[in-house]
Amino acid sequence: MTSVFDWLDTRADERRRAGLARQLRPRRPDSDLLDLAGNDYLGLSRDKRVTGAAAAATLRWGAGSTGSRLVTGTIEAHTELEHELAAFCGTQAALVFSSGFTANLGAITALSGKGSAIVTDAYLHASLIDGCRLSRADVAVVAHADPAAAAHALRTRRTERALLVTDSVFSVDGDLAPLPALFEACRATGAALVVDDAHGFGVLGEGGRGAVADAGLSGEPDVVTTLTLSKALGAQGGAVLGPRRVIKHLVDSARSFIFDTGLAPASTAAALAALTVLREEPDLPRRARAAAVSLAERLRAAGLTVTDPAAAVVSVLAPSPEQAVRWAEDCRAAGVWVGCFRPPSVPDQVSRLRLTARADLTPADLDLAVKVITHHAPPGAAS
Amino acid sequence: MTSVFDWLDTRADERRRAGLARQLRPRRPDSDLLDLAGNDYLGLSRDKRVTGAAAAATLRWGAGSTGSRLVTGTIEAHTELEHELAAFCGTQAALVFSSGFTANLGAITALSGKGSAIVTDAYLHASLIDGCRLSRADVAVVAHADPAAAAHALRTRRTERALLVTDSVFSVDGDLAPLPALFEACRATGAALVVDDAHGFGVLGEGGRGAVADAGLSGEPDVVTTLTLSKALGAQGGAVLGPRRVIKHLVDSARSFIFDTGLAPASTAAALAALTVLREEPDLPRRARAAAVSLAERLRAAGLTVTDPAAAVVSVLAPSPEQAVRWAEDCRAAGVWVGCFRPPSVPDQVSRLRLTARADLTPADLDLAVKVITHHAPPGAAS
Ligand SMILES: Cc1ncc(COP(=O)(O)O)c(C=O)c1O
Ligand SMILES: Cc1ncc(COP(=O)(O)O)c(C=O)c1O
Repeated sequence: MTSVFDWLDTRADERRRAGLARQLRPRRPDSDLLDLAGNDYLGLSRDKRVTGAAAAATLRWGAGSTGSRLVTGTIEAHTELEHELAAFCGTQAALVFSSGFTANLGAITALSGKGSAIVTDAYLHASLIDGCRLSRADVAVVAHADPAAAAHALRTRRTERALLVTDSVFSVDGDLAPLPALFEACRATGAALVVDDAHGFGVLGEGGRGAVADAGLSGEPDVVTTLTLSKALGAQGGAVLGPRRVIKHLVDSARSFIFDTGLAPASTAAALAALTVLREEPDLPRRARAAAVSLAERLRAAGLTVTDPAAAVVSVLAPSPEQAVRWAEDCRAAGVWVGCFRPPSVPDQVSRLRLTARADLTPADLDLAVKVITHHAPPGAAS
Repeated sequence: MTSVFDWLDTRADERRRAGLARQLRPRRPDSDLLDLAGNDYLGLSRDKRVTGAAAAATLRWGAGSTGSRLVTGTIEAHTELEHELAAFCGTQAALVFSSGFTANLGAITALSGKGSAIVTDAYLHASLIDGCRLSRADVAVVAHADPAAAAHALRTRRTERALLVTDSVFSVDGDLAPLPALFEACRATGAALVVDDAHGFGVLGEGGRGAVADAGLSGEPDVVTTLTLSKALGAQGGAVLGPRRVIKHLVDSARSFIFDTGLAPASTAAALAALTVLREEPDLPRRARAAAVSLAERLRAAGLTVTDPAAAVVSVLAPSPEQAVRWAEDCRAAGVWVGCFRPPSVPDQVSRLRLTARADLTPADLDLAVKVITHHAPPGAAS
């Protein structure tokens, strides 16, 4: 009748042949797999203080926020969360979005635009890349974690206004961006620094204040931080933190803020409760980091090629996408759930297992993880 | 110390002078304003069956989904909601996103790309426009609700693959796209039709199956529908509905699906429970529509310039942005909360009050609304 979508079958065949077809696997609430695949770094997603606050907010406020943040979609909990996030991280102000993805789109597009320049790291998260694509700015991509290259690109730009955009902790390999050097490059060239602290917030810095705070940069007038509420805070949503005038500007002009329904009351209240737990238990971030370091050291000692975890992400290289999938499946069958990242979810076309540590992993959990992952390693994986 | 963001102050001044500065106003849980501003068309956001399901899901599954839908972020409730949405609307399959915004980005970008064409209505929702901007396709914008212009643009395109993208019910004026004629134009030219049914789903069609189902198009192999879970279903999130191969393709390639945390358990369960209520009370959509028609007729009889509501959105033109703001403020002070849309949230630069009807509005609510809105109308508003 119509062949309009026949090309999708061709693409599906290509993916299948390349070992890149994906499948959704619903998680059961009572799974007893050891979870080294999620981003719930502090183990707060199921914390009773967090889930209790979310349930109460739903009953009190309703299941949805019912509109754009500019119309009916702002509830008191949004404002409170914004104040708390800003106070915790040491910025003048904050703005909550419906996701980290839309926070990144909003921050980048509203702060750039035609006639401005953006310099980005080559390993940027997809949501930041999409923000740059949407921005209509002149975008220059420089080598990964290379401040000299970033400085050069900023110095030789043809526009007055410029942003330097980077992840703090890169989502695939868990390595840290050279934030102080990047900031210096920005200051020297009159550019603003935008840092996505999705994987740093709650894990790095004093009490989990994040990588930007840890670098002493969160209060700077030319630094903007984006966060997600869906990882260390165990909820859903995103936020942008920075100078008051930046936040006011986003309210007036960020399309992914204005034309999007406000974050649900449950997720907002959950993030707020998780932040309170984090304040009360400032040792949680250190425990997540220690678990990551332990995992990395032990897997490397077993001969695997493992990244140095700056925060709670540990990446283990695999010889091919098919072997990565097989490896992850074998681990899962043996009770350990690990992430498996393949193209197009990796910046360098190299497939890997991606492990995430959590503050609540026990020594027995770590023993099991190391035993299972090394036991099922494919022949080419050991270096 | 740094003047990097000084340009933001200039922009803020410009907006203030043009009457376009915005302010977030947190909503209280016990407000007794009559709400004609939110998008909770069926009044389900605070329905006990919906909030109860959301609270229970949070306690059972946690506050967050903890990862990408491709990793740990798919729970059984996502899959169940996808089955129910597809069955309800009559499509082969469905895929749940974290928002209607990201659903639109994902559907458009994954189904187009370099070497393809997109033809769009001039009054498209911002999230669809951003999807087109991200797509790298050749984008042609044609006149609002003009199938002949769309057909012409499709016929004269230079690429084989093409999408025609439209809202079903336009978000500002609440008018209906000519879906049958647009579909015909697509069929005649080998293009696919992508319809954002955000304001039609739950309000139009038999039992609220939406505008696409109402036009008899939801089962067509070349039609894709996007939805939001944040309006008639009173929750948060979005979905794409269509042929199975389209949905599979999105799982493998939609960046706003792959690189985004899955929808929170609370929001997922709330949407599922709201869909069950909608099935059990198929008269809710008609009641929402009837309230909208009544509002429009009575305001027009009072001399105001009012759009014809195809669904539950009623728009009342205002002489200027300042007068629109003042009008809305006066209504609010008198107990009636109406939306106030100004540039850049309107496609034609004309400011207006935007009213939304709900299934649970009483005759007394409608009387109050009409009395207050007409009483506070600015001099230039009556035609
Ligand atoms: C670095 C980074 N930024 C942004 C996001 C998007 O955040 P969210 O999932 O809350 O939309 C993610 C992951 O999802 C991420 O890893
Ligand atoms: C037509 C239309 N599409 C998409 C969206 C975005 O949906 P969501 O708010 O769920 O992101 C909206 C409103 O928010 C809308 O009005």
